[in-house]
Amino acid sequence: MGGGGAPPKCCPPGLPLTSADLQPQLTRRRPGQSALTTPRNEKDAVHIQSGTEFGITLGTPIGLRVANEDQRPHDYSEMDLYPRPSHADWTYLLKYGVKASSGGGRSSARETIGRVAAAGVAEKYLSLVHGMEIVAFVTSVGNIHLPCSISPDLSSEYSTLQQTLTREKLDALSPLTRCPDTETSKKIEALIAQYRDAADSIGGTVTCVIRNAPAGLGEPCFDKLEAKLAHAMLSIPATKGFEIGSGFLGTEIPGSRHNDAFIPGPNGALSTLTNNSGGIQGGISNAQPIYFKVAFKPPATIGQPQKTATYDGVQGTLAAKGRHDPCVVARAVPIVEAMAALVVMDAVMIQQSRQAARNVQDGKKPCS
Amino acid sequence: MGGGGAPPKCCPPGLPLTSADLQPQLTRRRPGQSALTTPRNEKDAVHIQSGTEFGITLGTPIGLRVANEDQRPHDYSEMDLYPRPSHADWTYLLKYGVKASSGGGRSSARETIGRVAAAGVAEKYLSLVHGMEIVAFVTSVGNIHLPCSISPDLSSEYSTLQQTLTREKLDALSPLTRCPDTETSKKIEALIAQYRDAADSIGGTVTCVIRNAPAGLGEPCFDKLEAKLAHAMLSIPATKGFEIGSGFLGTEIPGSRHNDAFIPGPNGALSTLTNNSGGIQGGISNAQPIYFKVAFKPPATIGQPQKTATYDGVQGTLAAKGRHDPCVVARAVPIVEAMAALVVMDAVMIQQSRQAARNVQDGKKPCS
Amino acid sequence: MGGGGAPPKCCPPGLPLTSADLQPQLTRRRPGQSALTTPRNEKDAVHIQSGTEFGITLGTPIGLRVANEDQRPHDYSEMDLYPRPSHADWTYLLKYGVKASSGGGRSSARETIGRVAAAGVAEKYLSLVHGMEIVAFVTSVGNIHLPCSISPDLSSEYSTLQQTLTREKLDALSPLTRCPDTETSKKIEALIAQYRDAADSIGGTVTCVIRNAPAGLGEPCFDKLEAKLAHAMLSIPATKGFEIGSGFLGTEIPGSRHNDAFIPGPNGALSTLTNNSGGIQGGISNAQPIYFKVAFKPPATIGQPQKTATYDGVQGTLAAKGRHDPCVVARAVPIVEAMAALVVMDAVMIQQSRQAARNVQDGKKPCS
Amino acid sequence: MGGGGAPPKCCPPGLPLTSADLQPQLTRRRPGQSALTTPRNEKDAVHIQSGTEFGITLGTPIGLRVANEDQRPHDYSEMDLYPRPSHADWTYLLKYGVKASSGGGRSSARETIGRVAAAGVAEKYLSLVHGMEIVAFVTSVGNIHLPCSISPDLSSEYSTLQQTLTREKLDALSPLTRCPDTETSKKIEALIAQYRDAADSIGGTVTCVIRNAPAGLGEPCFDKLEAKLAHAMLSIPATKGFEIGSGFLGTEIPGSRHNDAFIPGPNGALSTLTNNSGGIQGGISNAQPIYFKVAFKPPATIGQPQKTATYDGVQGTLAAKGRHDPCVVARAVPIVEAMAALVVMDAVMIQQSRQAARNVQDGKKPCS
Repeated sequence: MGGGGAPPKCCPPGLPLTSADLQPQLTRRRPGQSALTTPRNEKDAVHIQSGTEFGITLGTPIGLRVANEDQRPHDYSEMDLYPRPSHADWTYLLKYGVKASSGGGRSSARETIGRVAAAGVAEKYLSLVHGMEIVAFVTSVGNIHLPCSISPDLSSEYSTLQQTLTREKLDALSPLTRCPDTETSKKIEALIAQYRDAADSIGGTVTCVIRNAPAGLGEPCFDKLEAKLAHAMLSIPATKGFEIGSGFLGTEIPGSRHNDAFIPGPNGALSTLTNNSGGIQGGISNAQPIYFKVAFKPPATIGQPQKTATYDGVQGTLAAKGRHDPCVVARAVPIVEAMAALVVMDAVMIQQSRQAARNVQDGKKPCS
Repeated sequence: MGGGGAPPKCCPPGLPLTSADLQPQLTRRRPGQSALTTPRNEKDAVHIQSGTEFGITLGTPIGLRVANEDQRPHDYSEMDLYPRPSHADWTYLLKYGVKASSGGGRSSARETIGRVAAAGVAEKYLSLVHGMEIVAFVTSVGNIHLPCSISPDLSSEYSTLQQTLTREKLDALSPLTRCPDTETSKKIEALIAQYRDAADSIGGTVTCVIRNAPAGLGEPCFDKLEAKLAHAMLSIPATKGFEIGSGFLGTEIPGSRHNDAFIPGPNGALSTLTNNSGGIQGGISNAQPIYFKVAFKPPATIGQPQKTATYDGVQGTLAAKGRHDPCVVARAVPIVEAMAALVVMDAVMIQQSRQAARNVQDGKKPCS
Repeated sequence: MGGGGAPPKCCPPGLPLTSADLQPQLTRRRPGQSALTTPRNEKDAVHIQSGTEFGITLGTPIGLRVANEDQRPHDYSEMDLYPRPSHADWTYLLKYGVKASSGGGRSSARETIGRVAAAGVAEKYLSLVHGMEIVAFVTSVGNIHLPCSISPDLSSEYSTLQQTLTREKLDALSPLTRCPDTETSKKIEALIAQYRDAADSIGGTVTCVIRNAPAGLGEPCFDKLEAKLAHAMLSIPATKGFEIGSGFLGTEIPGSRHNDAFIPGPNGALSTLTNNSGGIQGGISNAQPIYFKVAFKPPATIGQPQKTATYDGVQGTLAAKGRHDPCVVARAVPIVEAMAALVVMDAVMIQQSRQAARNVQDGKKPCS
Repeated sequence: MGGGGAPPKCCPPGLPLTSADLQPQLTRRRPGQSALTTPRNEKDAVHIQSGTEFGITLGTPIGLRVANEDQRPHDYSEMDLYPRPSHADWTYLLKYGVKASSGGGRSSARETIGRVAAAGVAEKYLSLVHGMEIVAFVTSVGNIHLPCSISPDLSSEYSTLQQTLTREKLDALSPLTRCPDTETSKKIEALIAQYRDAADSIGGTVTCVIRNAPAGLGEPCFDKLEAKLAHAMLSIPATKGFEIGSGFLGTEIPGSRHNDAFIPGPNGALSTLTNNSGGIQGGISNAQPIYFKVAFKPPATIGQPQKTATYDGVQGTLAAKGRHDPCVVARAVPIVEAMAALVVMDAVMIQQSRQAARNVQDGKKPCS
């Protein structure tokens, strides 16, 4: 679960799990699809190969399999002479000395299927056991921003949105843009249409909220929770930035306004009056909602011709290539949710180990 | 070297190394200090404990030691009843169940000494072997920004700055602010003075350039070079955001403008006309300068009284605490440089392993 | 490649690789099968799912798939009430709280298929690039030992065997026992037949030689080469011991006899007059043949009834279960070879990284 | 704790810990020293540098420091021309290209100080929380064996010894040989005296018992508990073999005799009638005593002259070097105990994480 996590690589045993738990997010990877839509075809159907029996996890590795469609043979074309600008063609060749002949090989965004499938397992545990909810949504495309999302302070409007939005509500409200405000959503649709008509592309941002994460997650110094989240998000194809809580805008307001004062909270714990911390202080979660924003660049594959050089350094033009998706951020929403689930799952398991160790020291019965 | 790197944990053997190589960056951790300044006192002097002999690394682990000053006994005070807002006091207690009595314990920014000392070893290798240069500088404090740094496109002015700025030039030009523009630097000094007088604090951003990094660094999918950099930077205390290349602003311009067209480069390789990619494409470095920006929140410790709750949830006031550094970004510059060196060193060693494997396959003599 | 290795998890790019490279060792997992035998059926056929194109590795992860036969539904039987003595049934239940219903689940020796398949990739590289040869053979079953293998000193007879035996010769000479001496092989066959007739089982040992491993492999202190080998071998099901070079018997002879004196070797290097070190000194390979022995317990599943207790602690008898393989060591030979290949591959890649780093320091062109 | 463990690298917080907990085993590293002896001098005194406050662990990394004595300058001698046979001199030079000038550098057995010191932290936790006891003892020197230790079956005499021997009893009974039988101990002393008088050396074996380890430790497939133990033991300098439970001798008896039948145990669990498994089945501990044996070669440094070659390949004689310790196994006893503690601690923390995860799934309150 996750890349190179520190705790056991296996799912906790005894967790109810079937492919029906994993399929909805895989289906949501397509715009216009929600968890409720029956996919018209069997694309991206996931099958559990190992690690469960009778719908219960065994605690041993869980193999998941999603088939690719039959690969159409790649027709040789003069365009193969060009590394695509701002793509991975050139750098993969530099790094590996060989390059897959079609579609970017492993640099293809199709690899995100594995992330989303695996995260389904993590989310099953996190929601069942901790009541955790992870909801991402589009906060901007181009220069169109969800208004409440571009203030250094977390307004009560935005706070409410973060605490109440669900995937179902979002997909019902804005199945195409995944932006949780109707008016902004319309402007975004219009903007994307402009870029589509221009055979161009545009970027945007996705914000993610994690609700009900237990306090104590994150391993200072080097594996602070926000550092692990940043790592996970910047590993998603096409990402360019990450910010936690008040982020970059928060650098422009004074500490007296930025600090989150403590107030009495539930069960004798403390809560905070504001949440510029984004739920993480000193690298450790404090039980407040964790929220962060991820920047996505405009997709590099555009329909417009591009003046660029071939692999041999000969200047020329990479031809127009028909219609392409001008903006990926709506599709990125379940991928951002998936990476959040994987990071939090690892952190939960490490912290539960520490808690268990403390318990037995304090004379409580060992967790058994 | 670095936290949990994949390649051997030891420095390559045979590298010339003494504490004189490591001391300058440790000294720069203080504002107003440059590599040329002889520290008035022996503070933060580093000693090499193991791993070298006769000034040459042995290839075995290198132990470094920097002494702390004698700890003044912490006078008990009523202020100890309060977890400091937006600090790590509360979350460390939640996570560990115990908390160091003074100064934040391991959450103290003093832990950055270890990062900077270790990075000195990495930098010795990277500069000697690859001619690599890593230079960070302040790009904003509060709402005062280095003008060329807030455009989605990389202007030739900014590009030139990135390609020519050195630590020596920066410390000579702006020893206090570490902002490489005199006019902006003055505004920053004035702004910081305002916040100091108000017993408040303010945040800012630090940008870092890595020059002459070889192509091919970064391990897709999960350890893309920008993901490792993001992880490293967000592990630094007080950080709130990371962006690579064109970053967040780049999400607002179309692909036709954002894409970096290829042009013929030196030695039969390709270069790019623009560099919105920030030197990394598909998660792999492409030999262009790597540049990224890190956001630092306003320091949480301020002189103003703060209404907040005690550990027991009783509302009260955390008293004013005298004078504090209202802004940390100048001090963060060598820390950002250090983390960059550690990430790049790990990536270089992994890629060199891969290159060596390819060489021997191609019938070349094994690297020996 | 291997479990949790330190170097890049991917095969070096540019390596010729097809399933034909991997199939022979998978076929050898059955007694009586050699690399030359065409399997009568398609059992254990391996398919490469990713990571290669046109028969060349891309440097990205290689997915391998070997199908299981259709699982016959497990007929419920009173014997399911009993955890099998010296099997993993009881401990898996203790550890995970759930247990696979049939055949031991992940504790089944069928998991060794993955090891053997993956090792085929490692071996392709190691043989192509370093001319490495890894040959294992049975040195004992019960109290029948290959005579030259039970001396604390490495006799010239044994040394010659180690330096000349190949898998093809072994499988031709002793396809059933995989013991490289005809007379001993006959005694072994007779002994195994006795145990088979008695519906009982017996253990044995497998010795493995690695020829042409480069010097310098192994990472002191904790990942000494023999420590990694020991770890790998004791991870194989049914193993009970590991010894390197002169092993346990070597503890009984004096240092004056045990030490391996240096003598001039090829290319200005040193060789050793004897090789009680088993090719590893100070945890690092010295270019001599690496040889080690692995102990396998008698298989726990026997035809004889066993007095034992149910999961509920009720004493009873686990009934006879028909015919079972009384000895597994011949089948273990390719598994031992596989684990050796995986360990050496990891060590080679780490050392090649170190060498490459040294080279560039010494002013040689960077490996590129 | 331990090299490269998977769970959190930090000691659980809230554990009482002072240097007095760590000192005894460091002192025992010398023959004739027991935990009760006040060291006549301050050699090998350990100091805790970080990670505790007021004698309680904070949960953050614990730094330990043991000073070396002043290094006497190494007098140049003709003997420096020779790599010592069966030492690490030659292979370190091959691997690193440079070599420490004196005493073997990091290949020196003095590195075991770090292992023993760190293990003291692990043992504090394991004994306090799980009542775990780890006791090692010498089972052979040369061809003198503790008689009950060389049977394939675990006799009741040996079983009783394993269940009752303590470090205090052992050091009182045999402070010089650390063999728990007076008669065997005398023979060992005589044998060692012979080799000392001959300016030669001899090897031996150390057996270790771990009592009260909880069931469920070990992570199949690759990190089976015996595999981790094998790795740890073969990482100790001068080791040549490892066997768990019935070990190599167990390969010579039939399964009907070797299998450990289940019997009802305490608290509704199962116990075993015999314990050839050595407390580990399917790679997972089953709550029976864990016992294993480690082989140590004769020390390579002997007083006798040795015919060998110089680094340049010139044949000559490495001169006699005065008096040396002819046998190291008594000194190895606390080192074996230390490595066992480190392995078990890692395994305990991983399993406690899994247990904690299961608990919360089963509707129990999360461990908190």
